[in-house]
Amino acid sequence: VFSDGDVWPTFRVEEAWAEGLDAIALTDHVEYQPKKDHVSTDRNASYRLAVKRAEELGMLLVAGAELTRRMPPGHMNGLFLQDANALAVEDWKAAVAEVRRQGGLIMWNHPGWVGQQPDGIARWYDDHTALYEQGALWGIEVANQSEVYPEVIEWCRSKNLAMLGSSDTHQPITTENRIARHSHRTMTLVFARERSLAGLREALVQKRTVVYVGDQLIGAEEWLGQVFKRSVIFSPDTITARGRQSVNVSATNTSEIPFHLSLAAPDAVLHAPQRLTLLPGTTAVFQVRATADTLTVDAPVTLRWKVTNLITGKDRGLEFPLQLRAQLKPSR
Amino acid sequence: VFSDGDVWPTFRVEEAWAEGLDAIALTDHVEYQPKKDHVSTDRNASYRLAVKRAEELGMLLVAGAELTRRMPPGHMNGLFLQDANALAVEDWKAAVAEVRRQGGLIMWNHPGWVGQQPDGIARWYDDHTALYEQGALWGIEVANQSEVYPEVIEWCRSKNLAMLGSSDTHQPITTENRIARHSHRTMTLVFARERSLAGLREALVQKRTVVYVGDQLIGAEEWLGQVFKRSVIFSPDTITARGRQSVNVSATNTSEIPFHLSLAAPDAVLHAPQRLTLLPGTTAVFQVRATADTLTVDAPVTLRWKVTNLITGKDRGLEFPLQLRAQLKPSR
Amino acid sequence: VFSDGDVWPTFRVEEAWAEGLDAIALTDHVEYQPKKDHVSTDRNASYRLAVKRAEELGMLLVAGAELTRRMPPGHMNGLFLQDANALAVEDWKAAVAEVRRQGGLIMWNHPGWVGQQPDGIARWYDDHTALYEQGALWGIEVANQSEVYPEVIEWCRSKNLAMLGSSDTHQPITTENRIARHSHRTMTLVFARERSLAGLREALVQKRTVVYVGDQLIGAEEWLGQVFKRSVIFSPDTITARGRQSVNVSATNTSEIPFHLSLAAPDAVLHAPQRLTLLPGTTAVFQVRATADTLTVDAPVTLRWKVTNLITGKDRGLEFPLQLRAQLKPSR
Amino acid sequence: VFSDGDVWPTFRVEEAWAEGLDAIALTDHVEYQPKKDHVSTDRNASYRLAVKRAEELGMLLVAGAELTRRMPPGHMNGLFLQDANALAVEDWKAAVAEVRRQGGLIMWNHPGWVGQQPDGIARWYDDHTALYEQGALWGIEVANQSEVYPEVIEWCRSKNLAMLGSSDTHQPITTENRIARHSHRTMTLVFARERSLAGLREALVQKRTVVYVGDQLIGAEEWLGQVFKRSVIFSPDTITARGRQSVNVSATNTSEIPFHLSLAAPDAVLHAPQRLTLLPGTTAVFQVRATADTLTVDAPVTLRWKVTNLITGKDRGLEFPLQLRAQLKPSR
Repeated sequence: VFSDGDVWPTFRVEEAWAEGLDAIALTDHVEYQPKKDHVSTDRNASYRLAVKRAEELGMLLVAGAELTRRMPPGHMNGLFLQDANALAVEDWKAAVAEVRRQGGLIMWNHPGWVGQQPDGIARWYDDHTALYEQGALWGIEVANQSEVYPEVIEWCRSKNLAMLGSSDTHQPITTENRIARHSHRTMTLVFARERSLAGLREALVQKRTVVYVGDQLIGAEEWLGQVFKRSVIFSPDTITARGRQSVNVSATNTSEIPFHLSLAAPDAVLHAPQRLTLLPGTTAVFQVRATADTLTVDAPVTLRWKVTNLITGKDRGLEFPLQLRAQLKPSR
Repeated sequence: VFSDGDVWPTFRVEEAWAEGLDAIALTDHVEYQPKKDHVSTDRNASYRLAVKRAEELGMLLVAGAELTRRMPPGHMNGLFLQDANALAVEDWKAAVAEVRRQGGLIMWNHPGWVGQQPDGIARWYDDHTALYEQGALWGIEVANQSEVYPEVIEWCRSKNLAMLGSSDTHQPITTENRIARHSHRTMTLVFARERSLAGLREALVQKRTVVYVGDQLIGAEEWLGQVFKRSVIFSPDTITARGRQSVNVSATNTSEIPFHLSLAAPDAVLHAPQRLTLLPGTTAVFQVRATADTLTVDAPVTLRWKVTNLITGKDRGLEFPLQLRAQLKPSR
Repeated sequence: VFSDGDVWPTFRVEEAWAEGLDAIALTDHVEYQPKKDHVSTDRNASYRLAVKRAEELGMLLVAGAELTRRMPPGHMNGLFLQDANALAVEDWKAAVAEVRRQGGLIMWNHPGWVGQQPDGIARWYDDHTALYEQGALWGIEVANQSEVYPEVIEWCRSKNLAMLGSSDTHQPITTENRIARHSHRTMTLVFARERSLAGLREALVQKRTVVYVGDQLIGAEEWLGQVFKRSVIFSPDTITARGRQSVNVSATNTSEIPFHLSLAAPDAVLHAPQRLTLLPGTTAVFQVRATADTLTVDAPVTLRWKVTNLITGKDRGLEFPLQLRAQLKPSR
Repeated sequence: VFSDGDVWPTFRVEEAWAEGLDAIALTDHVEYQPKKDHVSTDRNASYRLAVKRAEELGMLLVAGAELTRRMPPGHMNGLFLQDANALAVEDWKAAVAEVRRQGGLIMWNHPGWVGQQPDGIARWYDDHTALYEQGALWGIEVANQSEVYPEVIEWCRSKNLAMLGSSDTHQPITTENRIARHSHRTMTLVFARERSLAGLREALVQKRTVVYVGDQLIGAEEWLGQVFKRSVIFSPDTITARGRQSVNVSATNTSEIPFHLSLAAPDAVLHAPQRLTLLPGTTAVFQVRATADTLTVDAPVTLRWKVTNLITGKDRGLEFPLQLRAQLKPSR
């Protein structure tokens, strides 16, 4: 409620904790305070009120604020701030400088937001080049609420910026999820070495992030590949395909995320299903069989899958080579 | 947030509308304003902010306030107020007088609340006798959140006071329902002649109410009997029970409330199940058969059910005589 | 289990009853009996076993059988049969003649089934022309399980054949729904004048049917228009749009089916949302406003919606003109 | 369908696999074959048909049969059989002898089944003493479907018999779970050293079992204690309670089973909640505080919980001492 939200800051911490999150940032607007007739305009109030509750629940709480400017440069968050009131200055460049003076990180929010880009397409302006070249821009939202900006994935890859996803929530998150018909808020998975604000910050600065929006995970191959490998167990790893007989392979998805696989290229020797969906917490069994009465004993074969909801670039899914050791025999 | 809640008043209207309610009251505490360092203390603010949203959504919004006093007399709501600020006076009797001067109704909230009655038992004090005798007390909460006060049902019956149930919600209602593991908030069903504030008030003044808490409906036989009769369709109404053969009777519950039936007294002629649960939106089929090879042609028979979750008094469920026209014949 | 299913026939009746259906047909394969080493080959057994349970539960049970032939003519059901064993003859034309001799109806099943049409496209053969011209063909499946055949909608419209949809279930329906991720089986809604086998047959013969598959209803404008009109209540029907002010209109969907609306043509005078989803059992509120500071008092206006999941032809949704009486006034 | 069930045996394997089970037994009645007019009476057919599907899916399938006799001795399963047809003999003692001759295990089914014990109370007869004394009785059902027999827990403890729980399912399990309003079938958890029929049998013979029925787990302290300890993580294990300040302790339940805790005895030094429910897959936070301004540095303290739904005997829940290292200090 300290800018344009509908809930008290302690509630933000409680609902995030109840959802199982480890960390959130509070980022009330610096320049937009539509409730100021009834609510204090102290831009540090929301963080100060919430941080006690966060400590009780063991949540990591990041002090932030949203610079709310026309496009360009659009809206930007400062994270890991000391004093959000100091950002309330006329010139946005001065506000950015103040964030950096406080040791904060600058992220560019929802670059394709329809409120500022009616066609939903993110555009890069000279102001962003300037920010980037002076080393002020740390990351960009690839996803905000249910919006996804595919162009941003490529920007982040080519410029080595952090890929970020945010809920940008104003109402209780259950209300927003219901309206968007989402099962979870849009969020950033951060691969931290320790569960502390320092650990969180180190991983963010190093850009070890993946964006989780709807059923999609968006990020670098490096991280998505590990997510997939540690989520899905294939068994057995040795296939005995006797002629045209089929062999059952099971894939157990231990994660809470569905994975949609499609066969990138048909294998010369093995036949497997073209498409496969691995639902969360379930095991799928699929059939593999030799495509011909090939006689090859104990050959390594590879099924070249693409995981179409693990997004590594604009229109690009994670490639996953499933290596099996096949013992192929003609049937009789 | 204008007293000890966690959400902005417009959100209260929106979530109630989304839940399908027709009317709510906002009743911020008059004397308790723990957020006053950050939020306006104007006791009319929450109503004024919310009423525009209510009009847009077609919700009926009742202006109220909670007098927050020690027991006795405990907490009381004034409803249909003109100016909640005028209730902020030292003497609670003066506050009650002001509610009445404004044409408001006085209800006694959660008389067995563990915060004021650690054993959870509602107690009637001289102050309540005084209020009642001067005609100031209009109704009492039989249920508040998930607390139920069986004594209050009897008080309301014998003194002709309105039976009321309230959510007393502070957090988003979805959060409170989740914690209480409830599927709906505690509420008062009001049988109004027209869907308007005037219609609502008339029905409330006339005490045409039923309290809906958990799976229970609490109220007078008159209203509960109609709720049940209009919710459940029995078919057929003529039973042909040939000797010991059984006949299927179906009971379709068209409401959203489960009904738990138990046979109050065994019928001399017909045998029916001892217990029956009619789940919401479903049809249950049960078997009825003659208890003996009686020869009775075309006799009216009555199955004396008790609906154990339609509560008409302390430990008393609604009696429901199901009248069937039976054609009983010995089997050969 | 009497042909290639997995459950006993009485269970088919029970699960359909539990799902709230009024009628089902049992249509075991005539020519395909893979379990015959363990199960009786009497083609009337499944109906005879199930009909008693159907009577107890008040379900209408249609005696049927599936003629299981290569394409053309493919698989066909005979419904309302006297003796399914008599259909076990070598020549499929003789089997069809026998169905007609018994007074049965002939429907063509899953004309685009991938088992017989690998590309999933329904094709009309000379055999179907012959059947049609002799008046033997009564209806065709527009949908079977989760397959939909858009061509068939046009065939049924131009040839006046019944549009039909079937579950074609082999496992318990909950298993099939889970695998297909469906909330209900594919079925035919039949608009009968009375709830009896005779009433059902009369409505089927007269082709008063709509196919319900996934979130789609497929049928003639006549029936779909009535389904929509009786499912959705718009209110108010008079709009007072003062200049650029918006007015809220509510649409309450009392059915169990979501409706997806899109504005077919922009109205010259009123502005309304381009897309609107009316979820089952909920009310949606949308905003309407005058597009200009027009001064027109008390004009009838029409919002031309298309309901994109009420399918009246290949790629064609139901048109729904929402007529409102608008009182438009310039603001100020 | 080979005795009084409603589904084909392969479906039993598929639904159990879909539910995530590792092993099931098929135990058609030996003496009761109500569908014999239409279905083969070969008592080995169901196993033989199902075992291929089980192999494809990697399920362990136990060949069994149910001896279906009056009480005493009531119904008994033979498990790990070679030939179920050989059990179809007149004298039940001969049938038991044949099970043992085949190397099978004998369990006593539903000893308190209302079909044989109208009051639902399990009774031990001389026939059971005889079976037990000759070493023929291996285990007893503590739970069958939704029935629980508390007496049997004590019998199993004192006589060292295996505690067993079974679904005894006849319809599809989803149907039975819906009717019983259960989220899972009643089952036996078996703590095996390897996932094979041999491993399963070894663990069963050694009675390393726990019965899972509704929200209850029933078994020996030894196994229930490990289930609880490996399911719930308490943190931190060191409490710094400064005077009357409270400290938050979190309990994360990583299992799919809720745990209901109640404080067995108040601790002299620490105050903790009387009751606590740990829902599946969630973290509960509860408050602990020193009961007095005790000055004790670094004392080990124990909260004596009882887990009321982990049942170790008739009316006896698992005791769980939570050991914390407390650093208690007076507050100034």
